[in-house]
Amino acid sequence: MEKHDSLYKIRHSFAHVLAMAVLDTYPDAKIAIGPAIDTGFYYDIDFGEEKISDEHLKDLQKKMKKIAGRGLEFSGTPVTAEEALAHYKNNPYKTELIQEFAAENKELTFYKTGDDFIDLCAGGHVENTKELPLDAFRLDKVAGAYWRGDEKNKMLTRIYGLAFETKEELDTHLKMIEEAKKRDHRKLGKELGLFTFSELVGPGLPLWTPKGTLLRKAIDDFVWELRAEKGYKQVTIPHITKEDLYKTSGHYDKFADELFKVGSREGKNYFLKPMNCPHHTQIFDAEPRSYKDMPQRYAETTMVYRDEQSGELGGLTRVLSITQDDAHVFCREIQIKEEMNAIWDIVEKFYGAFNFTLGVHLSFHDPEEMDKYLGTPEVWASSEGLIEEIAKERGVDYVVDLGEAALYGPKLDFRATDSLGRTHQVATIQLDRNLPERFDLTCINENGEKERIVMIHAAIAGSLERFSGVMIEHTAGNFPLRFSPTQVAVIPIAEPHNEYAQGVNDALVAAGYRTTMNTSKDGFGKKVRAAKKEKLPYFIVIGDQDIEANKVTLESRDTGESEQLSIEEVLTRFNEEVQ
Amino acid sequence: MEKHDSLYKIRHSFAHVLAMAVLDTYPDAKIAIGPAIDTGFYYDIDFGEEKISDEHLKDLQKKMKKIAGRGLEFSGTPVTAEEALAHYKNNPYKTELIQEFAAENKELTFYKTGDDFIDLCAGGHVENTKELPLDAFRLDKVAGAYWRGDEKNKMLTRIYGLAFETKEELDTHLKMIEEAKKRDHRKLGKELGLFTFSELVGPGLPLWTPKGTLLRKAIDDFVWELRAEKGYKQVTIPHITKEDLYKTSGHYDKFADELFKVGSREGKNYFLKPMNCPHHTQIFDAEPRSYKDMPQRYAETTMVYRDEQSGELGGLTRVLSITQDDAHVFCREIQIKEEMNAIWDIVEKFYGAFNFTLGVHLSFHDPEEMDKYLGTPEVWASSEGLIEEIAKERGVDYVVDLGEAALYGPKLDFRATDSLGRTHQVATIQLDRNLPERFDLTCINENGEKERIVMIHAAIAGSLERFSGVMIEHTAGNFPLRFSPTQVAVIPIAEPHNEYAQGVNDALVAAGYRTTMNTSKDGFGKKVRAAKKEKLPYFIVIGDQDIEANKVTLESRDTGESEQLSIEEVLTRFNEEVQ
Repeated sequence: MEKHDSLYKIRHSFAHVLAMAVLDTYPDAKIAIGPAIDTGFYYDIDFGEEKISDEHLKDLQKKMKKIAGRGLEFSGTPVTAEEALAHYKNNPYKTELIQEFAAENKELTFYKTGDDFIDLCAGGHVENTKELPLDAFRLDKVAGAYWRGDEKNKMLTRIYGLAFETKEELDTHLKMIEEAKKRDHRKLGKELGLFTFSELVGPGLPLWTPKGTLLRKAIDDFVWELRAEKGYKQVTIPHITKEDLYKTSGHYDKFADELFKVGSREGKNYFLKPMNCPHHTQIFDAEPRSYKDMPQRYAETTMVYRDEQSGELGGLTRVLSITQDDAHVFCREIQIKEEMNAIWDIVEKFYGAFNFTLGVHLSFHDPEEMDKYLGTPEVWASSEGLIEEIAKERGVDYVVDLGEAALYGPKLDFRATDSLGRTHQVATIQLDRNLPERFDLTCINENGEKERIVMIHAAIAGSLERFSGVMIEHTAGNFPLRFSPTQVAVIPIAEPHNEYAQGVNDALVAAGYRTTMNTSKDGFGKKVRAAKKEKLPYFIVIGDQDIEANKVTLESRDTGESEQLSIEEVLTRFNEEVQ
Repeated sequence: MEKHDSLYKIRHSFAHVLAMAVLDTYPDAKIAIGPAIDTGFYYDIDFGEEKISDEHLKDLQKKMKKIAGRGLEFSGTPVTAEEALAHYKNNPYKTELIQEFAAENKELTFYKTGDDFIDLCAGGHVENTKELPLDAFRLDKVAGAYWRGDEKNKMLTRIYGLAFETKEELDTHLKMIEEAKKRDHRKLGKELGLFTFSELVGPGLPLWTPKGTLLRKAIDDFVWELRAEKGYKQVTIPHITKEDLYKTSGHYDKFADELFKVGSREGKNYFLKPMNCPHHTQIFDAEPRSYKDMPQRYAETTMVYRDEQSGELGGLTRVLSITQDDAHVFCREIQIKEEMNAIWDIVEKFYGAFNFTLGVHLSFHDPEEMDKYLGTPEVWASSEGLIEEIAKERGVDYVVDLGEAALYGPKLDFRATDSLGRTHQVATIQLDRNLPERFDLTCINENGEKERIVMIHAAIAGSLERFSGVMIEHTAGNFPLRFSPTQVAVIPIAEPHNEYAQGVNDALVAAGYRTTMNTSKDGFGKKVRAAKKEKLPYFIVIGDQDIEANKVTLESRDTGESEQLSIEEVLTRFNEEVQ
């Protein structure tokens, strides 16, 4: 969204009108910044002693409509720093911004809305408040926000507004939000009994129940199945290491703050691993490798740890213990393309199975901040060139994101769009010519010479925690058959049907399906409701007619339809669906 | 081995004779303690500036034989502390012992060997050195040992001797040692490419290669298979926790020294988990449980961490990161017996499959050291009574070990005897009425009342690292078919056989077997030697005759025999062997 977009202008203008409404009601409030954002706008405001909450929004919104209805013109005028500072002498936030802009010799402009209100602002507004679509906006919520996002600063009050061009767009967005709330993975995770948090263990550290573990395992098994076809082998590493490993890898210098430090009684320093690549290099490097042994493809599903600030923790989206399905390919230069394409194939198959649409981002380095990375500009240029070449050859649309590269190399990042239209950072493929340099990783080539190899880092589901959260919301807990912790409920209508039902259940279990059988004395309706509440993909009902016909009645969660089938037909259908 | 056993007398007497030989050669040496041990004896000696190594042993041994040959009588006399102290006025070690014994009012005795040598000693000797079987003993090796095992004390020189009643017994033992050296899991692990250690990662932190990971996984999958039959479900927990969890569990007070502390940037204290039980209680406690939900059986193969002293680390036997196949059953009092028996069944099946013989130890608490444990004497008595009852009902021989219980309850410990006759601590089943108390774990019983539940802790392989090490030595790397990382080598005799061999290989892979196919230009003999070096359970040779007969030639590692079979017959044989 650019300054010239009409939607940007609408949202940014609403921010000014919000500030006007606030100052009209609370003349002592000090306004800080008020940008347009993805779904509307916000304004950060210091209300002093006044406590502002969601219940104040109704009045503010009414006042905003009144102000906009007055048909005020937006007009900008350049000002000197002195003029600006004089105007804002009682506002420390604007004062700080003005001093900064002045120090950078930036041009300062004041934007007026009618005659009453002036805001320090770079522009991008509608011409007149009459143009604002008053039925396509609403004030949304109040939140706390540190001034400039720094927790050392004062906490301001942020008022969020939603704004679109039409009422229909606003309604669609509100409906999506409503649906997203229903699908919140924290809520569904609890209802479906997938994971839990314990106050004794701490926030950001999910504990997975048997059902949740089955879900994780089904996801992970699928990744393994796809990887096995491409020759990946499982390896196993410990979760800690002496700091020497990260001194060699370079992570120590760049990331020491985000690493969990582990103290031992002998005073040795260990770290909890925040990634697996340095450990995996040590397996590759344990013996000399011939070109005949290349590539070596190591994969491992294992937890890594990041010392996140506790304010950033929430549900499965941001956790302290992240289970990565992490792979590292050690290969020769001439093998890079084939290996990266093989991983890309896996990514497409994996996300395709869940009906996610994938966006491709080439995360490249920012040439103006070379100190954030390891390696020379030449190595970066060559790696990035190769990645772009692969993307072009596959004929996909892609976006280049400068400054989003990993410490050691550029990345191919995939973003999945879910059923509510939200995008999530998911799989990643990274090309790394720096760690092989730092760990001096080589193979012996056809001429008997040492040849520097390259590393490719690849995660498919990425973080099993985050992916589980995304998938729960994407499917609203209606997991595809293969991934459902319990796949089928077998429900005898009444006691005389229990024995036959047991046989059906046993046949399903023998075929590898996860079932639940309800032979309690509960009424039939109650049994069906229990199965539906668990969102099981199928349930099988057994009554007199089924037993007579030597069949079962299969009902599908997704179609709502039921059919009388033989157990063989049921298994055939299930096997096809799982494939 | 008691003081009155003839073997004890022989070994203890040799220790005295060793001291005599040492003092004869090194008159300034100060002798400390010299007990009989499992395979012979040792004597800890302070040699002052003198450096003693294995090469000095030959002369000492010769001198010992000479001394013994003189036919010296052993005779004991009570002495007062004053007399004893006067005799040892230049020996700080004996002085320390005498002062301690005197403080405890213990009777002191001096044992003379002939007229020349006196040692402070509680007795247990042959009557005359003539009785010592000089062909059934030898000095073995020199090692360092802290005085009284405390690293704060001076490091003494420990001279080990082997001693048996007959030359045959000594020879058998030497042969076993020789064989054990060949089978050393550190050596075989490297030769078979199973695991590696990295100086950058640190000692005690093994990194498992693809082959080693297959071995671990095959072991673990077997445990899961046995557990699945008994209704165990997999759960997943993070490796760290706030200290609150261990404050509630009681581990904080009892084990803080052995825990790895994890520091976060916000100054919160985390611990790396040294066990999984406290985390698992939080999954059980995440929702109210009805008696209908009981028992809940949680299992997880996951790493735990113990802050071992680095001097104690070696190979896979003692590591900092221990992978436990750990299970916790949350059950009602009335379910304890059935659940413990079910675990015992798993243990028997598991170790039976590897041809280990199992010894059963009841590890009970030491009533004189109640401060080492959680819980009341009554709870302990009841738990121990129940365990002994189960052992009796199963009709097995068992040993009661006082003082070997866990912090929270008594244990059923299993010791496996390997093919070299050595025993290893392996599986464990522990009954715990204390953690449920501390975490207030309950279920709602038939009367709608809260009922305190109990926990059973169970590990089958125990530590996957230690079990792998034991199994490598037990089998000398000749893993049973099911557990072999690579199971079959397919070897075409020459190039024309490659295509047919590929078909055979594909059929084996499709049936789930792990194969390697050697189509290199190496000669046939070289290919076979490579397969044998890897100790693969089977190799399949493909030549003209095989192709003509539409068969393969299967050779077994264990029998050395080869047979022409159809591929179906091979698969039938393999499937039977895996079962």
